[in-house]
Amino acid sequence: MHPTPPRHAINLLDKSALIEQQWSPRVVAEMNDYQFKVVRIAGEFIWHAHPETDEAFLVLAGTLRIDLREGPVFVQPGELYVVPRGVEHRTAAEGEAHLMMIEPRGILNTGHEGGERTATNDVWV
Amino acid sequence: MHPTPPRHAINLLDKSALIEQQWSPRVVAEMNDYQFKVVRIAGEFIWHAHPETDEAFLVLAGTLRIDLREGPVFVQPGELYVVPRGVEHRTAAEGEAHLMMIEPRGILNTGHEGGERTATNDVWV
Repeated sequence: MHPTPPRHAINLLDKSALIEQQWSPRVVAEMNDYQFKVVRIAGEFIWHAHPETDEAFLVLAGTLRIDLREGPVFVQPGELYVVPRGVEHRTAAEGEAHLMMIEPRGILNTGHEGGERTATNDVWV
Repeated sequence: MHPTPPRHAINLLDKSALIEQQWSPRVVAEMNDYQFKVVRIAGEFIWHAHPETDEAFLVLAGTLRIDLREGPVFVQPGELYVVPRGVEHRTAAEGEAHLMMIEPRGILNTGHEGGERTATNDVWV
């Protein structure tokens, strides 16, 4: 028995536009044990790291700034950036940016930092 | 020791434009044991499946048609489609399409079909 393939593709910006709150990643698809999530962000997140996994960002709209200890990297629409595991980073945007993130199921947005900015995990849009 | 993070994001269309041959996926980044590959396609590929893994497609330019036994799915720029493991599919495009594919390292473009359309694996651009 094979799974039934979806009948339609997923428009990523249409999905991110449905999210009510900024900094609240929402799952749009899965690939094996990985999840594709979209998120709207503005301002600055908290510094954190994911010791157990790399984390990929694809920008859909706006400009993503990823602060690293070595300095910022700017990611534009149509660009991809992979934060290596264990590397401290802080996502940020002036104005609003829409992103897709790819990471294993179960990863929290704040890594091991926890705190009030930790979003509910595994919510779909 | 943490890996050194890259200093720049990857522009996916800039990368796919560098590829000389159609149907020749080129790796642009890795995330854990997964690879991000870009590819230019036109016409029709062969029917195949990947029994061991799902396979994700993000369209960068043009229109991707994914033929499934149930009928075609069309994927436009900014759209994502995940072919579930074991599902027979055939990628196609009228005119040229530029895609990003995401799959585990070591997966061949022809699945277990082999043959003359099997591309050299693990080549970076």
